[in-house]
Amino acid sequence: MVKEELIVVKIGGNVIDNPTALDQFLTDFSNIQKKKILVHGGGKIATEIAAKLGLEAMMVEGRRITDKPMLDVVTMVYGGLINKNIVAKLQALGSNAIGLSGADGNGIVCNKRPVKEVDYGFVGDVRDVNNDFLEHLLNGNLIPIMSPLSHDGNGNMLNINADTVATTLAKAMAKNYTVSLLYCFELKGVLSDFEDKNSVIDQMNFGSYQHLKSEGVISKGMIPKMDNSFDAIQNGVQKVVICHSEDMLKVAEGQQLGTTLY
Amino acid sequence: MVKEELIVVKIGGNVIDNPTALDQFLTDFSNIQKKKILVHGGGKIATEIAAKLGLEAMMVEGRRITDKPMLDVVTMVYGGLINKNIVAKLQALGSNAIGLSGADGNGIVCNKRPVKEVDYGFVGDVRDVNNDFLEHLLNGNLIPIMSPLSHDGNGNMLNINADTVATTLAKAMAKNYTVSLLYCFELKGVLSDFEDKNSVIDQMNFGSYQHLKSEGVISKGMIPKMDNSFDAIQNGVQKVVICHSEDMLKVAEGQQLGTTLY
Repeated sequence: MVKEELIVVKIGGNVIDNPTALDQFLTDFSNIQKKKILVHGGGKIATEIAAKLGLEAMMVEGRRITDKPMLDVVTMVYGGLINKNIVAKLQALGSNAIGLSGADGNGIVCNKRPVKEVDYGFVGDVRDVNNDFLEHLLNGNLIPIMSPLSHDGNGNMLNINADTVATTLAKAMAKNYTVSLLYCFELKGVLSDFEDKNSVIDQMNFGSYQHLKSEGVISKGMIPKMDNSFDAIQNGVQKVVICHSEDMLKVAEGQQLGTTLY
Repeated sequence: MVKEELIVVKIGGNVIDNPTALDQFLTDFSNIQKKKILVHGGGKIATEIAAKLGLEAMMVEGRRITDKPMLDVVTMVYGGLINKNIVAKLQALGSNAIGLSGADGNGIVCNKRPVKEVDYGFVGDVRDVNNDFLEHLLNGNLIPIMSPLSHDGNGNMLNINADTVATTLAKAMAKNYTVSLLYCFELKGVLSDFEDKNSVIDQMNFGSYQHLKSEGVISKGMIPKMDNSFDAIQNGVQKVVICHSEDMLKVAEGQQLGTTLY
């Protein structure tokens, strides 16, 4: 049986923080003529609202800590303000979006991150995705819009990483769909020269990635994203493309833009 | 064909503002062994957060105005903080809750309230409920949890009235289900003597309601709730019960408590 295509798109905070870029992105997303899921990150709005509420960002060794007041802020901002406004905009474009956190339908199964040297607070590590639930929504011609939140199974929400949500979701959905995962960000792809924004590496397999990493060509910040992406490919996802958010629609339609991992 | 039973429960802000009452209520709700939908109101948290953010409540002729900053606050608080925390708590109780605004799946169709003497801002009047969407969720053994928000079809969220959501939803779902609508609040039912909390009127039909209203027994604040309720009954809803939130489970199980409208 030929599996139906499914496009999983991840956008980060840089698009969410820019209303013009977000509107264009959502117009493009609404024009994808295939089954699709959007995973969105957080953006700066949560930090701004936390500051207005008098909350200080808690940092330990450069890592953000999600204490209870900060959890409430991200639950409000990611799960309410950002998620629902994306849904309202997509609905206005004729796309039948449904906004979710990973708690809804128990869609994203998490563990609260164990306390070791650092207690990250209400942060979850994504364990699995409930693909039956998401398939039920897709079968109802709904378009899931996933915020980077889930729950701990004990009644608490958790802050989770949007990149990991996108990868885990793509892997789980690969069981019954031919999945393409598109990581959209502010660069045209993975660059061979960070000083040259046009030095996009067109294609990469796991061998060439290992080689580029050992040579220091792949920069430190990209490594978790790349590791996640190859993990997805090794687990049934057909392809992963890292591209500029402006190129997302063209990539979804099959054009060769950005960096394709295979 | 015998229609399956569906219980639509509405809780107001007084339960949401009281963590102990809310936990008990959600435990009871999770124990209803029938198809069910929860509609929740707002509570005081939005007002408190708005005040912390330096927003002043805009009132015209005693009616609250939802300007854009206040819309953002209710979208965060109702759609994010309150809705997702209810979902996380129900998931912990083994209930497969899915939190929604009326924008999600275009579940609640609204008109932005027209500007006449007063411009209420981003407030919607509920026009219809997309029962196919809600049935699809119920058929997937999901429990919809509805916040008092929807969208205007032009990309904006809207603040809507939870009582009207509950009634319109109950009416729309009556097409394919035998629907009971339970309005839960802080009193034991509709009282014949407001000074006596135990003077609950057990049953009321439209005729006895008109009579009690003409005699001034039904107080002013109850009239919109009662009008909504009888509208639901005249449009296919089997029964409406106005009861204390602590009695909700017993009422859902068929016990005669509160005020039953028929």
